[in-house]
Amino acid sequence: MIMTKMGIKPEKLAPKDAESINHRLLVQGGFIFQEMAGVYTFLPLGLKVLSKIENIIRKHMDKIGSEILMTSLCPTENWKRTGRYDSVDILFKAIAANKMSEEKSSAEYVLSPTHEEMVTPIAQKYNTSYKDLPVAFYQIQTKFRNEPRAKSGLLRGREFRMKDLYSFHTSEESLKEFYEEAKKVYLDIFNELGLGEDTLVTLASGGDFTKDYSHEFQTRCATGEDTIYLNNETGVAYNKEVMPEGADKDANYESFNACEVGNIFPLGTKFSKAFDYTFTDKDGEQKLIWMGSYGIGPSRVMGVIVEKFFDERGIIWPENIAPFRVHLVDLKQSEKAKQIYDNLTNNGVEVLWDDREATPGEKFADADLIGCPIRLVVSERSIQAGGVEVKRRKEKESEVIAIENLLDFINR
Amino acid sequence: MIMTKMGIKPEKLAPKDAESINHRLLVQGGFIFQEMAGVYTFLPLGLKVLSKIENIIRKHMDKIGSEILMTSLCPTENWKRTGRYDSVDILFKAIAANKMSEEKSSAEYVLSPTHEEMVTPIAQKYNTSYKDLPVAFYQIQTKFRNEPRAKSGLLRGREFRMKDLYSFHTSEESLKEFYEEAKKVYLDIFNELGLGEDTLVTLASGGDFTKDYSHEFQTRCATGEDTIYLNNETGVAYNKEVMPEGADKDANYESFNACEVGNIFPLGTKFSKAFDYTFTDKDGEQKLIWMGSYGIGPSRVMGVIVEKFFDERGIIWPENIAPFRVHLVDLKQSEKAKQIYDNLTNNGVEVLWDDREATPGEKFADADLIGCPIRLVVSERSIQAGGVEVKRRKEKESEVIAIENLLDFINR
Repeated sequence: MIMTKMGIKPEKLAPKDAESINHRLLVQGGFIFQEMAGVYTFLPLGLKVLSKIENIIRKHMDKIGSEILMTSLCPTENWKRTGRYDSVDILFKAIAANKMSEEKSSAEYVLSPTHEEMVTPIAQKYNTSYKDLPVAFYQIQTKFRNEPRAKSGLLRGREFRMKDLYSFHTSEESLKEFYEEAKKVYLDIFNELGLGEDTLVTLASGGDFTKDYSHEFQTRCATGEDTIYLNNETGVAYNKEVMPEGADKDANYESFNACEVGNIFPLGTKFSKAFDYTFTDKDGEQKLIWMGSYGIGPSRVMGVIVEKFFDERGIIWPENIAPFRVHLVDLKQSEKAKQIYDNLTNNGVEVLWDDREATPGEKFADADLIGCPIRLVVSERSIQAGGVEVKRRKEKESEVIAIENLLDFINR
Repeated sequence: MIMTKMGIKPEKLAPKDAESINHRLLVQGGFIFQEMAGVYTFLPLGLKVLSKIENIIRKHMDKIGSEILMTSLCPTENWKRTGRYDSVDILFKAIAANKMSEEKSSAEYVLSPTHEEMVTPIAQKYNTSYKDLPVAFYQIQTKFRNEPRAKSGLLRGREFRMKDLYSFHTSEESLKEFYEEAKKVYLDIFNELGLGEDTLVTLASGGDFTKDYSHEFQTRCATGEDTIYLNNETGVAYNKEVMPEGADKDANYESFNACEVGNIFPLGTKFSKAFDYTFTDKDGEQKLIWMGSYGIGPSRVMGVIVEKFFDERGIIWPENIAPFRVHLVDLKQSEKAKQIYDNLTNNGVEVLWDDREATPGEKFADADLIGCPIRLVVSERSIQAGGVEVKRRKEKESEVIAIENLLDFINR
């Protein structure tokens, strides 16, 4: 991508109202635009990162589920049926905005914050025999929550991206089996996102759904909102809300701050009961379906990654989700930079080409702020040395390498 | 994709309430699930088609604009500022659904049916010098419209997919130049979607925005809602609403039904005035920005394609957007079908494998209903003949070809 054609520039100053690292760096770097608290537009750089995160999640989800795309508008009736219309305290509804609109239609719809109320009738329409089950559907889609104040950048949104998976089973045993498989797939995802080392499965409250625990995926992070107690002897980690009595005084327990990046729930039969979703078993008997739900918020994950991987100069993106692999700083505004840009992009390397009229200082500062893994500099000096200056964002030292070795350097 | 793992099956009967061809075939084929009138979930097959359409649009849009992802929630203030809060008659707002939610936050937001009110402040933040312009942003995103009755399947939705592009210019001349370029790119898109031959640029009303015409892209279609008058001498086509006087009695004019698949508007300075969006010209003067907007509805396009390409047995997808290239009908439930499936998918061919326990009649009917370009049949007969039976959806005759020639046949 050519920077002068992108339509967006990094800013010199951080936004004044930023209370979190991800909010500050992502807005200043030109990744996101704040519409309101907790509501962000993804700008070209931000959408690149978000799409990479979503595509990694999608690749792994395809192994265990069938992708669909549900709507945000949901019949109010569905939410009344499960009793959640009145019990969920962050629920938005969509209604006519003005008189003219009301004259056309005064209908009301729930603006879905989660999709159990929509996916259950879909699964029910097509899967009513034990032969059809288990089955799992997932989607990557936008969710709405009427949060009063959302001040943590992408960590807590009123409109945000979610991957939600729902599974349907003939028995609790089948649910448990799938649940364990989903747990493994989730860990694969966080590994590929660069969060593997620091992400733990932790026990959390089952909420309304189950007397058992649910499970969260928590990433160690100094600014994290959750407190985790990890028993270093057993390896079991607990969210503070469910930690064993005395854990805070027990030397076997280590406690740390963490950000939730995913959660999985054994829903049991709560929703199948509400929708009378039964299946015909081998013996012809009608039995209730067992369900699980499994969430990862791609936009939230993007925020968590920034909270973890940054320094005083800007973001340091993990390789797999950087907006571009290479940030090409063009100080000379010469034909050389264009040649390198064309050569790399023709070889499948994603390059952000800073072709702006700006000082070297500004360009270097913006490269560090944006945080692509490799910075190339085309300057008078590098051209005279017959090469291009390369530096990894993670490292301090740069070197000049011959142009013919550039692809090897980048792909190594 | 393996059909028994998809979680969705084609239905034996068409939905009773279907008033349009696309609604009937897409629901019966298991492409979409109707939540309410004008609100459809995309099921695995439908999402495949939708994603292909969106990716074709994206590829062409990347040539003239920068992709972003705006939100649906928009500050009400923005819509009041342009005067459209009260004048747009299909506007939804999002508000707290219940008492608990209202206690948390009683704020109201517009649920965007179009994004001029959001994109203008974004462009304004980053592009205020003549050096920054022209610039164009686009997104592929979900839109909401409070339509009272939506009865045409994917043709008229209350929640639907939209590609919207917005361009920003220093002069009317620059806008006109970009507008003509966008027109060409749109025709390229409709060509690649298989609609090229039958899609015309037609003159339509400029609406609120301009005293000039706007332009629509209209696809000839027997069930289309619009009437087009084409002057066969000049080649100029008019939407009935702006046709020249007497055109309906003029032998030079041909009239036909058509479906709108895209529209482009010279917005002029309406929105830049509302947001005080000016730029600094070469001479240091502040001048108003000129804007254009350009829309294609991917979900609507999907509906139009079905309205055009079908027969009494089902859908006939154009090559580029078929959910799968190959529909593999497995009558034998043998190892042979699995070998073919693995071989083709390993060679990058998208295959839908009907591995269900069902009669040949059911499987053939469903293959025709779903409408992939090539049908393969693995049967006792084909195995004995040492090959596989192939048939194109468009043609009547099938033939048996040797397995080793299969890839050539498919890719030819």
